[in-house]
Amino acid sequence: MATAGKVIKCKAAVAWEAGKPLSMEEVEVAPPQAMEVRVKILFTSLCHTDVYFWEAKGQTPMFPRIFGHEAGGIVESVGEGVTELAPGDHVLPVFTGECKECPHCKSAESNMCDLLRINTDRGVMIGDGKSRFSIDGKPIYHFVGTSTFSEYTVMHVGCVAKINPEAPLDKVCVLSCGISTGLGASINVAKPPKGSTVAIFGLGAVGLAAAEGARIAGASRIIGVDLNASRFEEARKFGCTEFVNPKDHTKPVQQVLAEMTNGGVDRSVECTGNVNAMIQAFECVHDGWGVAVLVGVPHKDAEFKTHPMNFLNERTLKGTFFGNFKPRTDLPNVVEMYMRKANLN
Amino acid sequence: MATAGKVIKCKAAVAWEAGKPLSMEEVEVAPPQAMEVRVKILFTSLCHTDVYFWEAKGQTPMFPRIFGHEAGGIVESVGEGVTELAPGDHVLPVFTGECKECPHCKSAESNMCDLLRINTDRGVMIGDGKSRFSIDGKPIYHFVGTSTFSEYTVMHVGCVAKINPEAPLDKVCVLSCGISTGLGASINVAKPPKGSTVAIFGLGAVGLAAAEGARIAGASRIIGVDLNASRFEEARKFGCTEFVNPKDHTKPVQQVLAEMTNGGVDRSVECTGNVNAMIQAFECVHDGWGVAVLVGVPHKDAEFKTHPMNFLNERTLKGTFFGNFKPRTDLPNVVEMYMRKANLN
Repeated sequence: MATAGKVIKCKAAVAWEAGKPLSMEEVEVAPPQAMEVRVKILFTSLCHTDVYFWEAKGQTPMFPRIFGHEAGGIVESVGEGVTELAPGDHVLPVFTGECKECPHCKSAESNMCDLLRINTDRGVMIGDGKSRFSIDGKPIYHFVGTSTFSEYTVMHVGCVAKINPEAPLDKVCVLSCGISTGLGASINVAKPPKGSTVAIFGLGAVGLAAAEGARIAGASRIIGVDLNASRFEEARKFGCTEFVNPKDHTKPVQQVLAEMTNGGVDRSVECTGNVNAMIQAFECVHDGWGVAVLVGVPHKDAEFKTHPMNFLNERTLKGTFFGNFKPRTDLPNVVEMYMRKANLN
Repeated sequence: MATAGKVIKCKAAVAWEAGKPLSMEEVEVAPPQAMEVRVKILFTSLCHTDVYFWEAKGQTPMFPRIFGHEAGGIVESVGEGVTELAPGDHVLPVFTGECKECPHCKSAESNMCDLLRINTDRGVMIGDGKSRFSIDGKPIYHFVGTSTFSEYTVMHVGCVAKINPEAPLDKVCVLSCGISTGLGASINVAKPPKGSTVAIFGLGAVGLAAAEGARIAGASRIIGVDLNASRFEEARKFGCTEFVNPKDHTKPVQQVLAEMTNGGVDRSVECTGNVNAMIQAFECVHDGWGVAVLVGVPHKDAEFKTHPMNFLNERTLKGTFFGNFKPRTDLPNVVEMYMRKANLN
């Protein structure tokens, strides 16, 4: 390409300060270095995590910064040593990576890569500790290795999933974060047996994807739990068959669910991040075989508390990160799942 | 048999009051009713659970009572409807049962039978709500459906495992409680992969059996954790390869273990019942794939506390009851495991 190896000037939405409106700026995007790729971003969506770090209420602020991590694009050029990607490849950037070499990447169970695991405190490339974005020579920080609120961005090759070029990037761009997180929590971690009953706590995007995952896995009752009843109608489209609004009950929600299900649900998936909902999601699963899966990210001071007998009665509690999907290995298959379903309609 | 259908007079060790020495008495043992069997007890051992309920410090006292639940014997006679057992069968009584009909018995994952699950508050047979033991016409209470501190006892057929008649009852009598609990916690629940690292918290009988289970499963490092260093030498015979005495360290034991194992053990099994050890056993497993299994029974007011991020980093916490063995279905196989090993020596 004519731009390979050169600085690209393009538009980006820059956050100059915490909580202040993003400003459209012309930025300079340096060429990719070793094991990096530069991608032309065609579509990007907004995730609450972008908002959270833009507000910077709970962490050390790092500004100026380019946010964005749910996106779809096309590889513009690649740096030295990159063999798995080439210019023209359709890709999804991912906020957490897969080096394919560390114990986590080599484990069949983990996706928490030692090298490229999400790091919200790092604003530079891991190769040389520098940013690839600048304005008038002054660096602009990256965000979770993706910074997709820019027409071009530079990422480590391990944070880029190559996907089917026939997939519509305006649709599949949302698969690289919340949707896969919820979907994977159900199909990879909770693994509800056919005909089982699943409770989904929180019916935002992640929870809806978890409900969809439970439906795909063959659950026959999918109980949505949310304080906001206006979400229930939409949730039916994603597989929810019943709903519980804790506000409608004086009993603890775990007791309400146990009474609805002859002792407890077979699986639960917690997608709110509220520690009380986490405790409820665990305590509502059936003794003997119940499995609860935590997805939502808790407050840094949160404490999970329960009586240990709840475990000894053969309940299991697991947490998941990005739905246990390995970003580069598995995300292309999630896109294929979407494509097959799209073809059926 | 000449005794079938008749009351048998025999010796039993009766607990008349909480904490008072057991008294050898002549008791009358009524014939088995429907779905019951009467067993001649040849060998019985003493478990701490017997002592705990004899002390009766934490529960409603129920006396006079005949304790005992780890035992081996031979069926003397059977009640109406019993088809799986016949006089002369060699059996192990079990403190928790398997009806083979309820959702738990039908689940491949659970052994917590709805009908015959351990009940320490019940001192009578479930069929008619009466005791089969008496002295001068006054009833003596049963304990966990077994009461093996008697030459003859009556049990529900669902609490009796038929075993290989060649198995030495003086040895295998101990398999019906603690040994299977620890062994099963490792081989059925923790399931350590070959070559993995396992931490065992508490090196009493249950912990030693858990270490043995980890060894059988193929773990290559088995780290015993105990405050009592005098237990370490014996534990080597059961597979432990290394030891940590928390008293020798100023750091939290989870940190000591993480430093010994490049980030955490692959599996841990908690066999003390102390809630702090439970928290340590959970927090010492590796992120991404670590699984902790709780076995020890906690204090009734205990509270398990941890930061939810410990789960979200892909750790799993499970509890087990009787090592997830189904008493009637699986205990005969545990006896066979012992027999095969005995033959190898």
